[in-house]
Amino acid sequence: MRLTPKVQDILSWYDSDNPGTKGNIARILMTGKLAGTGRMVILPVDQGFEHGPARSFAANPAAYDPRYHFDLAIEAGLNAYAAPLGPMEAAAGTYAGCIPTILKLNSSNSLSTTKDQAVTATVSDALRLGCSAIGFTLYPGSEYQFEMMEELRELSAEAKSVGLAVVTWSYPRGPMLDKVGETALDIAAYAAHIAALTGAHIIKVKPPTEAIFLDAAKKTYQSNPVDVTDAAARIAHIVQACFAGRRLVVFSGGESRSAESLLDDVRAIHAGGGNGSIVGRNAFQRPRAEALKLLADIIEVYKTPV
Amino acid sequence: MRLTPKVQDILSWYDSDNPGTKGNIARILMTGKLAGTGRMVILPVDQGFEHGPARSFAANPAAYDPRYHFDLAIEAGLNAYAAPLGPMEAAAGTYAGCIPTILKLNSSNSLSTTKDQAVTATVSDALRLGCSAIGFTLYPGSEYQFEMMEELRELSAEAKSVGLAVVTWSYPRGPMLDKVGETALDIAAYAAHIAALTGAHIIKVKPPTEAIFLDAAKKTYQSNPVDVTDAAARIAHIVQACFAGRRLVVFSGGESRSAESLLDDVRAIHAGGGNGSIVGRNAFQRPRAEALKLLADIIEVYKTPV
Amino acid sequence: MRLTPKVQDILSWYDSDNPGTKGNIARILMTGKLAGTGRMVILPVDQGFEHGPARSFAANPAAYDPRYHFDLAIEAGLNAYAAPLGPMEAAAGTYAGCIPTILKLNSSNSLSTTKDQAVTATVSDALRLGCSAIGFTLYPGSEYQFEMMEELRELSAEAKSVGLAVVTWSYPRGPMLDKVGETALDIAAYAAHIAALTGAHIIKVKPPTEAIFLDAAKKTYQSNPVDVTDAAARIAHIVQACFAGRRLVVFSGGESRSAESLLDDVRAIHAGGGNGSIVGRNAFQRPRAEALKLLADIIEVYKTPV
Amino acid sequence: MRLTPKVQDILSWYDSDNPGTKGNIARILMTGKLAGTGRMVILPVDQGFEHGPARSFAANPAAYDPRYHFDLAIEAGLNAYAAPLGPMEAAAGTYAGCIPTILKLNSSNSLSTTKDQAVTATVSDALRLGCSAIGFTLYPGSEYQFEMMEELRELSAEAKSVGLAVVTWSYPRGPMLDKVGETALDIAAYAAHIAALTGAHIIKVKPPTEAIFLDAAKKTYQSNPVDVTDAAARIAHIVQACFAGRRLVVFSGGESRSAESLLDDVRAIHAGGGNGSIVGRNAFQRPRAEALKLLADIIEVYKTPV
Amino acid sequence: MRLTPKVQDILSWYDSDNPGTKGNIARILMTGKLAGTGRMVILPVDQGFEHGPARSFAANPAAYDPRYHFDLAIEAGLNAYAAPLGPMEAAAGTYAGCIPTILKLNSSNSLSTTKDQAVTATVSDALRLGCSAIGFTLYPGSEYQFEMMEELRELSAEAKSVGLAVVTWSYPRGPMLDKVGETALDIAAYAAHIAALTGAHIIKVKPPTEAIFLDAAKKTYQSNPVDVTDAAARIAHIVQACFAGRRLVVFSGGESRSAESLLDDVRAIHAGGGNGSIVGRNAFQRPRAEALKLLADIIEVYKTPV
Repeated sequence: MRLTPKVQDILSWYDSDNPGTKGNIARILMTGKLAGTGRMVILPVDQGFEHGPARSFAANPAAYDPRYHFDLAIEAGLNAYAAPLGPMEAAAGTYAGCIPTILKLNSSNSLSTTKDQAVTATVSDALRLGCSAIGFTLYPGSEYQFEMMEELRELSAEAKSVGLAVVTWSYPRGPMLDKVGETALDIAAYAAHIAALTGAHIIKVKPPTEAIFLDAAKKTYQSNPVDVTDAAARIAHIVQACFAGRRLVVFSGGESRSAESLLDDVRAIHAGGGNGSIVGRNAFQRPRAEALKLLADIIEVYKTPV
Repeated sequence: MRLTPKVQDILSWYDSDNPGTKGNIARILMTGKLAGTGRMVILPVDQGFEHGPARSFAANPAAYDPRYHFDLAIEAGLNAYAAPLGPMEAAAGTYAGCIPTILKLNSSNSLSTTKDQAVTATVSDALRLGCSAIGFTLYPGSEYQFEMMEELRELSAEAKSVGLAVVTWSYPRGPMLDKVGETALDIAAYAAHIAALTGAHIIKVKPPTEAIFLDAAKKTYQSNPVDVTDAAARIAHIVQACFAGRRLVVFSGGESRSAESLLDDVRAIHAGGGNGSIVGRNAFQRPRAEALKLLADIIEVYKTPV
Repeated sequence: MRLTPKVQDILSWYDSDNPGTKGNIARILMTGKLAGTGRMVILPVDQGFEHGPARSFAANPAAYDPRYHFDLAIEAGLNAYAAPLGPMEAAAGTYAGCIPTILKLNSSNSLSTTKDQAVTATVSDALRLGCSAIGFTLYPGSEYQFEMMEELRELSAEAKSVGLAVVTWSYPRGPMLDKVGETALDIAAYAAHIAALTGAHIIKVKPPTEAIFLDAAKKTYQSNPVDVTDAAARIAHIVQACFAGRRLVVFSGGESRSAESLLDDVRAIHAGGGNGSIVGRNAFQRPRAEALKLLADIIEVYKTPV
Repeated sequence: MRLTPKVQDILSWYDSDNPGTKGNIARILMTGKLAGTGRMVILPVDQGFEHGPARSFAANPAAYDPRYHFDLAIEAGLNAYAAPLGPMEAAAGTYAGCIPTILKLNSSNSLSTTKDQAVTATVSDALRLGCSAIGFTLYPGSEYQFEMMEELRELSAEAKSVGLAVVTWSYPRGPMLDKVGETALDIAAYAAHIAALTGAHIIKVKPPTEAIFLDAAKKTYQSNPVDVTDAAARIAHIVQACFAGRRLVVFSGGESRSAESLLDDVRAIHAGGGNGSIVGRNAFQRPRAEALKLLADIIEVYKTPV
Repeated sequence: MRLTPKVQDILSWYDSDNPGTKGNIARILMTGKLAGTGRMVILPVDQGFEHGPARSFAANPAAYDPRYHFDLAIEAGLNAYAAPLGPMEAAAGTYAGCIPTILKLNSSNSLSTTKDQAVTATVSDALRLGCSAIGFTLYPGSEYQFEMMEELRELSAEAKSVGLAVVTWSYPRGPMLDKVGETALDIAAYAAHIAALTGAHIIKVKPPTEAIFLDAAKKTYQSNPVDVTDAAARIAHIVQACFAGRRLVVFSGGESRSAESLLDDVRAIHAGGGNGSIVGRNAFQRPRAEALKLLADIIEVYKTPV
């Protein structure tokens, strides 16, 4: 297999990394229907932790079985599948070698009263389970953000030393932020930038809204305006915050909703230069055929030349 | 990517191994023109250690450059490329993600007067260089065989714990063996079996000759005859020694020689149920076009349904 | 390269340090247009953490790319470049060997409600990235100051043992201090002194104002007056607090402002015997040509014999 | 400082290495009168170990003082200075930051009856002494060669992980080799290749003679002739054995002899594409002025465009 | 040098300690003008941490330079010099071997709002800087006293294992204590006893006042009266609390004041059987000649036979 020029260019962004890590980034980028395009669609299934089993899987009971997700991701031609330790252990042997995997190392749950997460798996787990990357969630702004960053530092350093890639979910929350703030454009850009600063290879954020939240930032956005009414322009601003587009950035799909609404987001991500989507609930909460159709439609958007 | 039933069956032989190791075996088996067939052609380039640079590369000077071999293996559609630390470091970054690699951890050289090897790389090197497997040479019969086995034990255990596969070169030599003995059928079967016994995932031996060498074994082979005049039958006997065909076994190509002679060997390996060839000098000492032709011919043999 | 007598004298201040650390201090002092003068101009780019990407880079979008800063620092003939892990990884390979670097090991951000920082990189990172020094921010006066000092102790001890230098940003804040207090002369001197006491090789503080803040200190300053209306005298007092000028001390440039205002500060630092400036926003938020002009003007001041 | 295109190209050969190691290779290549040319002259002073103090230094008693060698290397504008632990400790503080240094980690002596060396310093020593590289001597062919390779493996892995470069002296000796064999062309090429295979960044060998020593190799050299009577052609063959010229290779000056004889070697190294000379006894056993003249003449040769 | 019978007797108190620790206690007791008497005068300079640089050194600006204190202590013939990491590093090389040193491992500062200290140096630092002892401040009664004791436990155990002595500053403060309580006789005795209980070799407390502070203790002091109006009797009570005089105890000089007042304290310490004085501000805040005169007078008192 030869890398496409696009993927070779992306690997050149990571020239402090060893060939093992570069190889795993390449593996993710050269897998599935988007192989070689520099775009990705990833299936993440950590909602069982976040929202509990019924809220996650009752809509499509086949999805209670961890094999379902591996199979869906492979069938749909996705780039990678991300999950916590348990579901990864429950199916990684069966699907060994079939699709790059991302072991989600920390998770929170709906029973928690703190804006923190538990580290529930290790880099050694990622190696024994054949994963290409570790995944980690940061909550920039949380009272626990510094401890989370320090956990990430340890896990990243170890992952990079053994040739794994680091995927960072960067989800702002905490005492200074309300619901509007958590997805405001300035905050989303800040969150993406913090993930890049802490050394992520692939950054995952939510698509930003039109809001500018921090008073201290408003003047900057007035002097250097982003067309906040244009979703693609908002995405482009996030891409810029990821080292001028020299770190891969993907956007989450969020709660289950209409295919058309999700595809609107995808078109904006595509037009704004984002590297793809990480679609969980919108994929596995739909019946399988419908999910495959939606994922195929998303992939089709990303395959369109810009 | 879905595994073929053939590869799924092969992975079932390794059910004590973790998903990481299974994934790396799958990766080797699902790469290149033989992907999914259960057959493999591997390019090994450690002859610089064994015979020195001129004897290895003067016939085709382009091969002095470590990038040449990566490129040849990829272009030919091989399953994997094996090399020692230096050449792997010299090109693994450039070819990250392009082909599964096997880091050869020990090597001897022609200036040595002992039948031993130096361990010149580590499992950590294999991880940081993105390799799928470690490679190790055993000399069953050598005065150093037990030390070598113990080195292999340490390296294998570490490799398996981090999801790598173990490829063992098993080359009999030592005080009890002369040139005839080193490739005799009983000895080759013994060497393959020792590799299997020490936990190899993939075993590499030389194609066996008609000789039965050990007096102690002759009676057995009289009672339970193998048709030693039939090269395919000899291969089948080696396959049998590899846990009744439940460990992958590949055969070396040996010194540079005519394409037809090599293809004869390949046809026997194919007919006898061997899993493939590991062809070094016969590949890289030929001009590139000629090497690609020969490798394509070998692959063609292995693609033929039995 | 021979050290100038000035730099040899400075190295004599650090005679408890090993040759590795001395060599890295020398490397910083012998690089760029101020090489050999004992003065330094350093480019620090950690404002992305502190203020977010847009507030940091929107004014000059080229600066979103981490390569921009390496290039600017080299082109301007500065002594060193300081950054957190992510941007250092994103460009250290490309600019290996071109300019001494300082890996900023901890960082805060505008979403935090505590006066603390996260440790986001390690001494091992500094070594693998080829850095000459680690950077660490202390908040003397913060509720977290003791924990921060203890983090610094661990990181400093490790850095010194492997031949790296330690650069300490000392920024007072906390329950006993208001905005006036944070930059008051007595507090700035105290902060610089605390950095020296904890073993910093290079100390970074903000230029002090005329205020004397702590009641307990007022009597002392009355008996032993400093001409607080003279900026150079204030700088000289800070220099004195750095072991009578036997620890290198540099002053930050602060928020973006007019070149003339910044150059006034620089003239005072120069006249007061400070060792130089660490200029971030005032450099990278200007268009490149303008930034190069300003940095050249700053360097010109420091080159003037006293 | 910006790297020359020549040095940038050389760094691209080492793309499995981290920025720290690349930076130290760059530092060596960007220092002294040959800075930026891709050529090097290095001063090694480990002859006190090898031959004892009087044989090493009595001809020029100033050279008993370890400071003499640092000073000579700096004054002559060399790229680096190499020495064992003791002399490095005796002067590294005084000359911190003045010239890249190589800590020679192992050494033998004339009182030994085995072809082995003692490891007398560590990678930690190299860091605390501010060295850019470790140096290690291999004896390919010795009864101890495998143990030496295993020591080198451990030290190299550690050095690379902390951003140091690895310089390997590869000197064939052992039961299969006589005096002719030790410097024969085929053996010298083999020794250089073994250093490359074990992961050296910079390889040091002796200039080869016209002899072809190993019977097994003679046929190869007959089919693929090297013009052994042409010293430059012999050098070019060694360069070829160093991964087709993609590993830096320097040649030792050997015993003290006439300047003209040494310069003849240098002209051949230059013409054959070698990366430079490592000149010990021919430098420090001459009176200082004469040594500086000779080193200047050597540098002049390497500066001549090919 | 032979130990005096007095010092031999003192060492006999520490017979659980290893010869390394005993040797360091002996070194302190056998240095300076009081060598061999069992009495000590120590110069501590950690006031820069506690009160800031100007309050500490503005009265005698020469004292901003860490070399000043080493020089003063040596010139005055003191037994030891104590300081935090930074000033110790800044002069320990210059004064290596000149006077026993005590590395102060923790410190607080005037900007803190908690009665705690930061541990800013390690036992490893004490070894590499050639110190004879570590110094540690306990705040018996503070909300943090147990954490501080546990830090002391770790540091003491490590110090003792490597042959260093432990000097404990025991300064009562906390919610149960007011200004009177902090220096009351019962509390001072309690604090000294806690230091002894936690394993100090040398205890430092403030000279006690006449007050008896704890209600619970008053009855005891009524039944077993101490003549609180006699300063020597108060000292004798503290000595008694230090294992019946079998732990060395020294008394601080407190704030700058008249020589006569300080000498009164010294006479009481001498008469009461205390082991000496630890005099900081009263030494280094005076002009050098005056300080030397005062220290000579103090030493004269301690030399007088009891």
